[in-house]
Amino acid sequence: MTGPTFEAEVDEPPAFVFDLDGTLIDSVYQHVVAWHDALRQLGVNLPVWRIHRRIGMSGGLFVEALARETGMAVDDAVSRRISRAHVEAFERLRASIAPLPGAEALLQALERAGVRWAIATSGSSEVAYPALELLGVPDATLVTRNEVRHAKPDPDLFLVAAARLHVPAARCVVVGDSVWDLLAARRARALGIGLLSGGYGRDELERAGAYRIYEDPADLLSHLDEIGVRQVP
Amino acid sequence: MTGPTFEAEVDEPPAFVFDLDGTLIDSVYQHVVAWHDALRQLGVNLPVWRIHRRIGMSGGLFVEALARETGMAVDDAVSRRISRAHVEAFERLRASIAPLPGAEALLQALERAGVRWAIATSGSSEVAYPALELLGVPDATLVTRNEVRHAKPDPDLFLVAAARLHVPAARCVVVGDSVWDLLAARRARALGIGLLSGGYGRDELERAGAYRIYEDPADLLSHLDEIGVRQVP
Repeated sequence: MTGPTFEAEVDEPPAFVFDLDGTLIDSVYQHVVAWHDALRQLGVNLPVWRIHRRIGMSGGLFVEALARETGMAVDDAVSRRISRAHVEAFERLRASIAPLPGAEALLQALERAGVRWAIATSGSSEVAYPALELLGVPDATLVTRNEVRHAKPDPDLFLVAAARLHVPAARCVVVGDSVWDLLAARRARALGIGLLSGGYGRDELERAGAYRIYEDPADLLSHLDEIGVRQVP
Repeated sequence: MTGPTFEAEVDEPPAFVFDLDGTLIDSVYQHVVAWHDALRQLGVNLPVWRIHRRIGMSGGLFVEALARETGMAVDDAVSRRISRAHVEAFERLRASIAPLPGAEALLQALERAGVRWAIATSGSSEVAYPALELLGVPDATLVTRNEVRHAKPDPDLFLVAAARLHVPAARCVVVGDSVWDLLAARRARALGIGLLSGGYGRDELERAGAYRIYEDPADLLSHLDEIGVRQVP
């Protein structure tokens, strides 16, 4: 009996694709408050928790969800005005933003272990680059909203990141703080790891398909053996 | 056979004790960001999601939890400085605060139905009174942090509120958005109702003992029959 042969890929550590806001950088609540401000400027009063639960999804889908939840007519011009107002409001809060505990140490440990990693964010390059500076990794492999047609929960961001790392998406571990990261991870056939550091509840992340949940990057770093990374130097 | 007699109290609607921030007023995220700012001024960088999960508990316990989580020495003077910085940071965000959807309508419906209600908050009077103005109920029965020895998750706030309403606490329904409200409700032997509008996950509130969960005051208003209030005019 003959047939295709499959080579077992044993002992290959996974590659890591990280979300940025709420996963490596402590910026989710500032983004939430900035979106709330931006919407108020257009006379829309969407309760803040609903904005929080939409953070991390693509801006386009965010605005569509917004239109559905508020009954507001959102054309391209309004959408651009909201996005611009959000960037401005976020700028005012930027001084309060820091890396999450363990974020730098985690990326350094992966480097030392020879594990490939990238960052994939639904945010724009304009917002993402200063965050890389904060993390001390200005040259990290980065995929932003500007480079894909559809952002999370579509899998495009993670698929492009995997391709840049020259690793099949199915061998990637996707680390994110939001339901949208985990849904997109499943669509990319990657393993999704949830972090509580974006303010979602554990249960919400589990239900979205998280393989494992940690508090923050520091907690993930001390449990890397649970997801296939051994002997971190 | 004789023994004590118990009178059945049928058809008595419950009294309602409401938390304020995140339950009637859309202010949780602003409080979170304000606490984060206040702590940064003292050189403490506590991740924002951890502050979110402590909001609604007594200031004293909040500061103790903070000391535990950061290893920081927090004496009375430091504690007062943090509280003052929080009030100042919160003032700057106050313009963005509005009632949650359905909050005014819910309180008016209870009034019309002759159901007693009060507000009990772990916050100070200084922060609570402007919120009552926003809700259009400046003369509401209000119990604040200033009036009890221990705030949530101790039951004192709810016990004092029940006493002011001349209703046993065990006949009260406590409505809150945080785990601390629900834990305090159980200690007061009241029935706890959770609202998602403060940004906790459904599961977190259920595990803390919520009898029922609604999205926000509007959602609670349209399900009042589920918790013993019938024929709202």
